[in-house]
Amino acid sequence: MSKYTLGLDFGTESARALLVDVATGEIAATAVEAYPDGVIDEHLPGSAAPLPPDWALQNPSDWLAVMERTTQAALRQSGVAAAEVIGIGLDFTACTVLPTSADGAPFHTQAAYRARPHAWAKLWKHHAAQPQADRVNALAAARGDAWPRRYGGKISSEWLIPKALQLLEEDPELYAAADCIVEAADWVVWQLTGVLARNACAAGYKGTWHKSAGYLPADFLAALHPDLAGLYASKVAGPVVAPGARVGGLSAAWAARLGLAAGTPVAAGIIDAHAAAPGGGVTGPGVMFMIMGTSTCHMLMSPQEVLVEGIAGVVEDGIVPGLFGYEAGQAGAGDIFAWFVEQSTPPAYHQEAEQRGVSLHDVLAERAARQRPGQSGLLALDWWNGNRSVLVDAELSGLLIGATLATRPEEIYRALIEATAFGTRLIIEAFTGQGVAVESIVAGGGLAKNPFLMQIYADVTGRELAVAGSPQPSALGAAMLGATAAGPAGGGYATLAEAAGSMAPPPAQRYRPIAAHRPAYDVLYAEYRRLYDTFGRGENDVMKTLRRLRRA
Amino acid sequence: MSKYTLGLDFGTESARALLVDVATGEIAATAVEAYPDGVIDEHLPGSAAPLPPDWALQNPSDWLAVMERTTQAALRQSGVAAAEVIGIGLDFTACTVLPTSADGAPFHTQAAYRARPHAWAKLWKHHAAQPQADRVNALAAARGDAWPRRYGGKISSEWLIPKALQLLEEDPELYAAADCIVEAADWVVWQLTGVLARNACAAGYKGTWHKSAGYLPADFLAALHPDLAGLYASKVAGPVVAPGARVGGLSAAWAARLGLAAGTPVAAGIIDAHAAAPGGGVTGPGVMFMIMGTSTCHMLMSPQEVLVEGIAGVVEDGIVPGLFGYEAGQAGAGDIFAWFVEQSTPPAYHQEAEQRGVSLHDVLAERAARQRPGQSGLLALDWWNGNRSVLVDAELSGLLIGATLATRPEEIYRALIEATAFGTRLIIEAFTGQGVAVESIVAGGGLAKNPFLMQIYADVTGRELAVAGSPQPSALGAAMLGATAAGPAGGGYATLAEAAGSMAPPPAQRYRPIAAHRPAYDVLYAEYRRLYDTFGRGENDVMKTLRRLRRA
Repeated sequence: MSKYTLGLDFGTESARALLVDVATGEIAATAVEAYPDGVIDEHLPGSAAPLPPDWALQNPSDWLAVMERTTQAALRQSGVAAAEVIGIGLDFTACTVLPTSADGAPFHTQAAYRARPHAWAKLWKHHAAQPQADRVNALAAARGDAWPRRYGGKISSEWLIPKALQLLEEDPELYAAADCIVEAADWVVWQLTGVLARNACAAGYKGTWHKSAGYLPADFLAALHPDLAGLYASKVAGPVVAPGARVGGLSAAWAARLGLAAGTPVAAGIIDAHAAAPGGGVTGPGVMFMIMGTSTCHMLMSPQEVLVEGIAGVVEDGIVPGLFGYEAGQAGAGDIFAWFVEQSTPPAYHQEAEQRGVSLHDVLAERAARQRPGQSGLLALDWWNGNRSVLVDAELSGLLIGATLATRPEEIYRALIEATAFGTRLIIEAFTGQGVAVESIVAGGGLAKNPFLMQIYADVTGRELAVAGSPQPSALGAAMLGATAAGPAGGGYATLAEAAGSMAPPPAQRYRPIAAHRPAYDVLYAEYRRLYDTFGRGENDVMKTLRRLRRA
Repeated sequence: MSKYTLGLDFGTESARALLVDVATGEIAATAVEAYPDGVIDEHLPGSAAPLPPDWALQNPSDWLAVMERTTQAALRQSGVAAAEVIGIGLDFTACTVLPTSADGAPFHTQAAYRARPHAWAKLWKHHAAQPQADRVNALAAARGDAWPRRYGGKISSEWLIPKALQLLEEDPELYAAADCIVEAADWVVWQLTGVLARNACAAGYKGTWHKSAGYLPADFLAALHPDLAGLYASKVAGPVVAPGARVGGLSAAWAARLGLAAGTPVAAGIIDAHAAAPGGGVTGPGVMFMIMGTSTCHMLMSPQEVLVEGIAGVVEDGIVPGLFGYEAGQAGAGDIFAWFVEQSTPPAYHQEAEQRGVSLHDVLAERAARQRPGQSGLLALDWWNGNRSVLVDAELSGLLIGATLATRPEEIYRALIEATAFGTRLIIEAFTGQGVAVESIVAGGGLAKNPFLMQIYADVTGRELAVAGSPQPSALGAAMLGATAAGPAGGGYATLAEAAGSMAPPPAQRYRPIAAHRPAYDVLYAEYRRLYDTFGRGENDVMKTLRRLRRA
């Protein structure tokens, strides 16, 4: 009898249930469904009152309803029996948080709170706590605190403290009424098991938790707001456990709702991007895993904790227990190419795409592929959405140099792709230059399916790039967490690495650098680095000046 | 009885005859006609053999035929009698040159030479003599010659010596057979009058002639090629006269062909761009005249000769006798905006333009006009076609900085217009900073008809800009030369300044700087200058590196 594990992948717009064979990782069934209320950024469900700018909420009831329906659908499709499912794991966007009562009850379902925006879950991309984030960073800088160095020097408005502080300042009554503030991943596990544990991934990467140092001290919080002092001691209390640790068994009520067996082990969750690393077969040190989509996230593990310049986070147990998980990122990748295609491609290209039934990206890539590296005479800085690693500066902006009257759209398109590849090379060199080895690279995400782009990345970095074999690496990684929570006695694995070793499919594709392309890219990369330093490190602050004029 | 003067304006694609009232400058009639053979850049008329790349020729017979037909048409339309036309003036593109026999007979009409490309006129934009131009510049640099400083340090492949040297090297037999090498303007006057004189404008700006120093010495020419040594002494011999000087009277044969009186005074010609200065009412020191089209040419007169950095030419008598005429330029203006509209504007903009029956430029300008200066957060260097003044460097290229995912096409369009305005401000400051006064500015050409653009130029430069009142300033300037050649005794004027004083219409429009726009533009201009120096003066030579990679 085969055994199966259930991976639940909670994304921004939808959730997916993936049922996989524990021995082979083969997919038995998958079901996906969009959240009924989606991303709530205009007005609350059932209300016409507009939300302020930069708000982004979710309805936690959606998560439960979609989880129930997709799990049932996957079971139905596959014919897998409840007894055959040995474990449940999940990944979630982060920092996606909600306030709850001591028993985990959310506020948005209570009539007294329903109309209050802070009663709902704040989605990761809720950016309305920027003033609070600015104050956190200013305070840390003023105190000369060392902890921000674990996060590239600054925390983002997306993180836990700014979001909690905004709740406290804008709705102090609700803040007082909330016994807990909890990550969505941990809340869903709590719902399923009745046990509240904090996953080390979200706690470390978004909540400033450190395995040895713990959370930030109360005096720091008190300096932000007197009533915030007890945040960690009370509202964010609870054990911090590594992803894949068994938090508890599935409750009878939820077993009935999902169609699974009561007591089925449920694993501590993980952030969605990070789940893709084990899902892509990456669980050991020295292998960089890149999730390449609208933006790119680079994950890497090491037995050592090193404070690498501009790395967005280093968290012990953050991805795989026993290792320090490093996270770097490029704030723009696919969204820059999408911007270009939408805003800068003339009608003839649209017509060709339509006539041939291909995408505009295909038309541009096909034409651009005919050129040799350097032929366009163009070079770009990939900062259309600011720079995350290694400069950690959202005020930076895009640059294109080398345009002539003969410059064609496909040449700019290619220069933008090359610029993101240079950005990745620079991140790799930041790691290796500061003592964190990068021995090989695996890529996943939408852009990893683009051969034209992947070949450029291989040529620019001079590295072989493997493309993760799973079409759903995050959901597969979540399923591996379930198998790890089950443990060998429960028919699963002792470690996440063992789970990945058996369950991750081999690479779908490998891209090797083309030797003839390397010299031109080395020259271009040297120029990229020089522009990077000139405009990114204060030598010429024109981008800051332009940003100021824009806001004026 | 009114008196009239005939202005003949020989452009790149067509020629125009303009008959104007000598007293008022009012247009009596105008006629325009394209040259039958146009720009000859693919194969010679009557031949299928392709011309090499970068060649651009014209058929001198076209000039005569079109002159004849347009003059007759203007006379017919207006009902002006031959006796009422007191003078003839003309402007021409330059350096547009042809080899001739001692009597002015061209070679392209002779059966023995018709099939030889060098027998035809080389048009100004014939760029196949670049290797020869490089050798001229290298030789001058090696000798440490001072004369290139009059031309911003280098001469162009478009000029007389490179074109003559190419003729000598590629068709030595024809070079030997040619008694004369003559500018098109001077050749047409020679045809009309039987007298060969060289106009100081073309001789100075394109032929390296200097009123005191004369032409380049024979030993310089000999160092380029032994057989070139006699170029100036023999093939380019003849008096050099200021534009508007009377060269001779119309021959009986040509009087019959044109329908004019034999003996009608014919003036020495002028380059087409330079004719627009008097045509725009600019004949005195301190008034900058800008011809704004695909590229921009800035003309300025001064009683002093100053070697201003990066000025494309300074020629005594070059525009108005008795003054030093300065010429600066921006290699790209309208052609950059046209590039953007063609290569970077998405379908929705095209659809809107079509639906509303307006141009894409109108759609973009209308949207861009809603923004305040600095609002886009964008800044560009206007080097899509290299930089003429003040860097004189064709290897430079365009730069755009400040792009984000929110950047819209109209914002880039506006940034490109602003960049060309910053380039003009920099040229103005180069003149004033080096002691050549710019007291006021008059603009002509296609872009001067664009109120959105003109307001930006006023705001950026902080100067009032007057738009020349004449719709055909070059042809009107040519007509003024005819009135000057006639002189007071012939019913005309003693000087070009007097002619312009009576005949140039008042400005069509005036643009005054908007005070509220100035501070943001001062900030942006300071950043423009810094980028200009960084990328244009060797601090960061990335544009040269990119150009090398492009060619590799």
